[in-house]
Amino acid sequence: MTIDEAPAVGGSPSRTEQETRRLLTELLGVFYTKGWVSGTGGGICGPADGGGLLLAPTGVHKERIRTDEFFTVDPADGHVVRRPDNPDLRPSECNSIFCLAVREREAGSVVHSHALSAVLAGDLAGAADHVAIRDLEMLKGIRGLTNRDVHLVPVIRNTPREAELVEQLTAVLADPRFAGAFAVVVADHGAYIWGADVWEAKRHTEVYHFLFEAAVARRDRGEERSR
Amino acid sequence: MTIDEAPAVGGSPSRTEQETRRLLTELLGVFYTKGWVSGTGGGICGPADGGGLLLAPTGVHKERIRTDEFFTVDPADGHVVRRPDNPDLRPSECNSIFCLAVREREAGSVVHSHALSAVLAGDLAGAADHVAIRDLEMLKGIRGLTNRDVHLVPVIRNTPREAELVEQLTAVLADPRFAGAFAVVVADHGAYIWGADVWEAKRHTEVYHFLFEAAVARRDRGEERSR
Amino acid sequence: MTIDEAPAVGGSPSRTEQETRRLLTELLGVFYTKGWVSGTGGGICGPADGGGLLLAPTGVHKERIRTDEFFTVDPADGHVVRRPDNPDLRPSECNSIFCLAVREREAGSVVHSHALSAVLAGDLAGAADHVAIRDLEMLKGIRGLTNRDVHLVPVIRNTPREAELVEQLTAVLADPRFAGAFAVVVADHGAYIWGADVWEAKRHTEVYHFLFEAAVARRDRGEERSR
Amino acid sequence: MTIDEAPAVGGSPSRTEQETRRLLTELLGVFYTKGWVSGTGGGICGPADGGGLLLAPTGVHKERIRTDEFFTVDPADGHVVRRPDNPDLRPSECNSIFCLAVREREAGSVVHSHALSAVLAGDLAGAADHVAIRDLEMLKGIRGLTNRDVHLVPVIRNTPREAELVEQLTAVLADPRFAGAFAVVVADHGAYIWGADVWEAKRHTEVYHFLFEAAVARRDRGEERSR
Repeated sequence: MTIDEAPAVGGSPSRTEQETRRLLTELLGVFYTKGWVSGTGGGICGPADGGGLLLAPTGVHKERIRTDEFFTVDPADGHVVRRPDNPDLRPSECNSIFCLAVREREAGSVVHSHALSAVLAGDLAGAADHVAIRDLEMLKGIRGLTNRDVHLVPVIRNTPREAELVEQLTAVLADPRFAGAFAVVVADHGAYIWGADVWEAKRHTEVYHFLFEAAVARRDRGEERSR
Repeated sequence: MTIDEAPAVGGSPSRTEQETRRLLTELLGVFYTKGWVSGTGGGICGPADGGGLLLAPTGVHKERIRTDEFFTVDPADGHVVRRPDNPDLRPSECNSIFCLAVREREAGSVVHSHALSAVLAGDLAGAADHVAIRDLEMLKGIRGLTNRDVHLVPVIRNTPREAELVEQLTAVLADPRFAGAFAVVVADHGAYIWGADVWEAKRHTEVYHFLFEAAVARRDRGEERSR
Repeated sequence: MTIDEAPAVGGSPSRTEQETRRLLTELLGVFYTKGWVSGTGGGICGPADGGGLLLAPTGVHKERIRTDEFFTVDPADGHVVRRPDNPDLRPSECNSIFCLAVREREAGSVVHSHALSAVLAGDLAGAADHVAIRDLEMLKGIRGLTNRDVHLVPVIRNTPREAELVEQLTAVLADPRFAGAFAVVVADHGAYIWGADVWEAKRHTEVYHFLFEAAVARRDRGEERSR
Repeated sequence: MTIDEAPAVGGSPSRTEQETRRLLTELLGVFYTKGWVSGTGGGICGPADGGGLLLAPTGVHKERIRTDEFFTVDPADGHVVRRPDNPDLRPSECNSIFCLAVREREAGSVVHSHALSAVLAGDLAGAADHVAIRDLEMLKGIRGLTNRDVHLVPVIRNTPREAELVEQLTAVLADPRFAGAFAVVVADHGAYIWGADVWEAKRHTEVYHFLFEAAVARRDRGEERSR
């Protein structure tokens, strides 16, 4: 990643769709290095010109997607309005989930993580429908939170196909306990994490992975958080 | 790794042998970074023109292999049909194992991993001849599986030389319990992981390493997978 | 990171402010890779020409800061004497903490880490106000210490805003038990680590993270350090 | 690291001293990424023209050493026969240890690791003077070993200065139990690992770190190695 070419200000929208395409492919490379996408699992979407959503194809090695390989879908219903030239590509199965987050939470960008830390954080929920995360400064990295908040991250059950997660996710997004959440953990699977634009989605993605790792590490040690 | 030059579509065969050679050397570099090959251990093979198999040399630092340093072997019997110019190079000890996977499972590419996670996953088997992996979305990354499957990964005993693993591996590949497996763990050693072509072998390699890490992490915590 | 262009001698001040700016941005990239800054959290400062302090902006992805995006502040009182052209940037919340370390410890450079290992090391303190680290050669990497020393690293409570940490930090810096410390852990948060110049701050940052990881690993295993 | 430019054949000596200098600096960069050298700790030496030993300077950030910053010392007694132009540089404290390994074991290259895994492996020794490593294929990566061997790695006590380790190391190198070892762990400190040339030292370095990590991971889980 070249430091001097990338815009530094979080929260600023990319200025052109081509910039967004470059940023999405670059972030998939970063996330691959961190182990958050692998084995063709995981993905990302971001804003296209004209209100559409740039969507990675399914079944491909995500860290190798080219800027001309995104689909553009209409977030109102997920139908494809523009497709890449390569006829072998099909749109990501995340489509319906991504569109739901865009519609219900005004997300401009959504990351789908296959990180082990997300799976292990989901295990912490046990029979509950959420994990409670507290006592961490990094909570301030989530829009609207302070480091004094107890943050409830919803955990939903995994289903055979990602599209079938929509029903559970719809319920979770309507649940007032989770109004402040920008992530949903899917047990045994990973997480969906979003933000108002690609930069906020990146920040939230990094913050939630830190929170997952911290929650798992503290549980492993069976220690109380003191102080 | 340059994102824009690499083909993105999993499952597409490389178009030329030279592309395959470049991809194999690149993947060895990626696997070295992830700790899956190191200390000259581990390796990879892929399809040569004319039905042969490109095979890395033995005893070399795998992340530094050059595209002109592969042997070409006949997978029918493993004999060398073309060798690199460098007279010091000898073909990898994986030869007979790789050829077996090619013949018995129609593998186009096989990865030999020396990852610690594969060794620790092998430890989980105890006296059994397999590890059962379940309750993970990443199972869908293995051809033919759903995330509801209980996937049995065979675990065989280590032997003084890799060629001597052939007898055990032959039995495992004929065992109907393991018909859906694209990997064999060798206890105290690592794993062999394959696919129809290099891209599928890469995807399976990433997926199985995730499964190994998840199985080990869940065992460590002694938790039941709920939900 | 290009090996041949970077000055190698630890302790030598950078020769120009522009070199310092380049080094600070490069180090943020290295620290991001290691997980010590992420999610826009963490930061760094270093010496500007004329006695000022180069300070990264707040709320930005730290590994992507450009060399022209630093603020220059007066360490006597933290007020901004020069600001970057980009009007959206605001100075880092670390400002008052960084200036305190500069004034009270003659620090030329301060790193703010959001590493999980720092948080977990803080957990080790329990109700105490410090963590004691001993029996490690890496202690010699901290100016003034031998590997026979028992090094007390102060641990302070986290507060809603970083500026409010100043009161606790002032007390810690005046405490003779911590006279040899070049780091303060903030529980549930991370650490501030400093040095006489950027190179010493880098060395101390790497050493303290090693010490945090070692202390946590040894505590997890519940082993006594023998020998 | 560029794959196509690096010589691939382990065991082949570099052809020129300048190549050796480049390789030593490159390996320090790789080891820094892996966490084996950090905080100016750790180091490496390799063969100079005319039978001398290229030695990194002390107190510098090892991953940033330039090819013109090595000292050349006479391994017979460690005295400096050629020094870099930079007058601020002093030869590494590893000098006497490195020379000892060169003289007593005909090492052509020695790596000094500050890896946490080496420290934790040293902890496993308890009151004993060695760690026994067995049941790992990676043992074959050490010259002369099979995967059926029980490999004894000597563990010596740490001392205030590295030069003072010489007495213990001299005893260890004369001990027939450790005749097959290419590494010595220094408790609370790290390890010295060597080979006949830089490539073998690299291979041994990677193999021993794998063995350290495996031994620690298996001890943590308290499992017996079965099969």
